[in-house]
Amino acid sequence: MAEPLILWTYDWVPPGPRGFVRDLRLRWAAEEAGLAYRVCTVPFDGRHANHLDRQPFGQVPYLTDGEIRLFESGACLLHLAGKSEALMPRDPAGAADTLQWVIAALNTIEMVTVPWWFSTVSGHADTPLTGWMDTRLGQLETVLATRDWLAAGRFTVADLLMADVLRIKTLRAHGTRPASEAYVARLTARPAFRKAHADQLAHFAAADATRA
Amino acid sequence: MAEPLILWTYDWVPPGPRGFVRDLRLRWAAEEAGLAYRVCTVPFDGRHANHLDRQPFGQVPYLTDGEIRLFESGACLLHLAGKSEALMPRDPAGAADTLQWVIAALNTIEMVTVPWWFSTVSGHADTPLTGWMDTRLGQLETVLATRDWLAAGRFTVADLLMADVLRIKTLRAHGTRPASEAYVARLTARPAFRKAHADQLAHFAAADATRA
Repeated sequence: MAEPLILWTYDWVPPGPRGFVRDLRLRWAAEEAGLAYRVCTVPFDGRHANHLDRQPFGQVPYLTDGEIRLFESGACLLHLAGKSEALMPRDPAGAADTLQWVIAALNTIEMVTVPWWFSTVSGHADTPLTGWMDTRLGQLETVLATRDWLAAGRFTVADLLMADVLRIKTLRAHGTRPASEAYVARLTARPAFRKAHADQLAHFAAADATRA
Repeated sequence: MAEPLILWTYDWVPPGPRGFVRDLRLRWAAEEAGLAYRVCTVPFDGRHANHLDRQPFGQVPYLTDGEIRLFESGACLLHLAGKSEALMPRDPAGAADTLQWVIAALNTIEMVTVPWWFSTVSGHADTPLTGWMDTRLGQLETVLATRDWLAAGRFTVADLLMADVLRIKTLRAHGTRPASEAYVARLTARPAFRKAHADQLAHFAAADATRA
């Protein structure tokens, strides 16, 4: 029997990011695919120095799959997609379609939404990123108005990732994009998301007791 | 004989971005791998509306490989890496190492460098992205100070991509990172980069005559 996957996350985070720490993407994917996994932790305190040998940017998540170790949630998702057709179709065209939308979530949408979020919470509400982001989110809204899934006519890991990118509260409060909103609602209603989300909240809540 | 790959780019761009349009990443990868390709174009004018059926964000490049079409330069690079060991090792650990560094270039480094560049050229030199970027580039400098290649102890498509991300002039003029600078110099001295770069410049220069 194969050794279960190990998903690495922080031992604790403050309340703000709970439900949004990116180990959720890996939990969600593993739940969708029915892959066995356990969760291990690295200290949140001192994260910028303590686990650089495993993750050179001090981030989580990372993934252990037997002899293989991977960081970057996007890379981990593509690795998990290689293990289960539930996450990515096996035909070359469907796999390519999934791949392009995974990268679009990371490098076209999140490349502007995350810096926009960071700029606005840092008090720079006038950031020039707003116009650029509105263009990108508008183009994505056009896509989502015409179909239920991004790639291959079915649920894939690209939807999992894009929904996680889009479900950030400050983003949803900015502008009106009904198709995107319905898409996020549909994806986050999936049992695998709900279990992953509840498990992450429980994980960090349990750590409060230890720290208190 | 397999049909040659088709790399799609704009028919023309203004002088500023020449040498930096992302079709260069695909040209470079195809040259490294010795893959046959030809270049086709879509109009730069009207790009935000005219080719949305092929690229929902109006961007280039995209790639045709027989029946398969892909957009997002990062996705195209991973697709090309699947066709040639010159771009990515075939052992699972080496492939995973390459994948994680490709995604790190797209979603950890470029996710801050591109919005930082955009903010500063838009007149927001005080962007809070500067501190975040300095942290990320400093962490990457630490990595590059200890080894010649990002992944698997050899040249991979991850180096190609990371060097392309780092070689932006405004980025190199910001701060001092000798290992990163040596890395960019080493990568851009490769014959495959030099050919790809010269070919892109020639492609856009030839279009000037047509527009004049």
